[in-house]
Amino acid sequence: MFKIDKDLLQNCKQLAESDRFSYLLHHNAEVVWFILVPHTEIRELYLLDPELQQQGYQQINLLSDFIQSHFSIDKINVASIGNVVPQLHIHVIGRRCDDAYWPDVVWGKKFDKKRESTEISRISAQLSAYLARH
Amino acid sequence: MFKIDKDLLQNCKQLAESDRFSYLLHHNAEVVWFILVPHTEIRELYLLDPELQQQGYQQINLLSDFIQSHFSIDKINVASIGNVVPQLHIHVIGRRCDDAYWPDVVWGKKFDKKRESTEISRISAQLSAYLARH
Repeated sequence: MFKIDKDLLQNCKQLAESDRFSYLLHHNAEVVWFILVPHTEIRELYLLDPELQQQGYQQINLLSDFIQSHFSIDKINVASIGNVVPQLHIHVIGRRCDDAYWPDVVWGKKFDKKRESTEISRISAQLSAYLARH
Repeated sequence: MFKIDKDLLQNCKQLAESDRFSYLLHHNAEVVWFILVPHTEIRELYLLDPELQQQGYQQINLLSDFIQSHFSIDKINVASIGNVVPQLHIHVIGRRCDDAYWPDVVWGKKFDKKRESTEISRISAQLSAYLARH
């Protein structure tokens, strides 16, 4: 039984789940920050079996398109890092030229503004509807 | 005629080139830092045409495997950011638990140690041989 890393769960709200992926939204309200978690014990993107890797890239495409079509953003940042949380997870983040960190990356930054539960519910509903259509 | 962004060329040494990709090595000697540049004007990974995107992911796999098999590293970091340099480019970086930045990300950090030309030549030869075999 696959379990999402507890640090990821502490920093994020789980929005959706499929057989092979979990979709998390980071609590940081300053940016639109999704984290895709493939259900695997493999820790490096390039070591995933080709089918799961292909599906992962498809989910990155979908999350990127979802962000671009539902939020006012200027750039998508995509990254698999894992220096702190070893469980494989991929960041898909919508950035604005006027967000608090621009042009810096978001990792390792502190944040004050936690996303409100009403907004999380709205994004969750939008994402579920989007994923159901694609 | 495709031209690599001048900021990328200032920070990196170009090691190899194919029809559709250029392979750069960042001057920062602290980490093994490759930058893959697809020959395209598209600026977002998810907007690439499916064939080039697929080839890009294959090159990321190859660069990751090359790093893992030729250097002593603990983690691969992969990222498409582009907040500073808008031309699409993908970072593929070998990280060690004892490198100067660990566990932080490498972007936005200053560096003192520039890679020596003899080492660049060695890595360049190894990469060309590796890419020719795969």
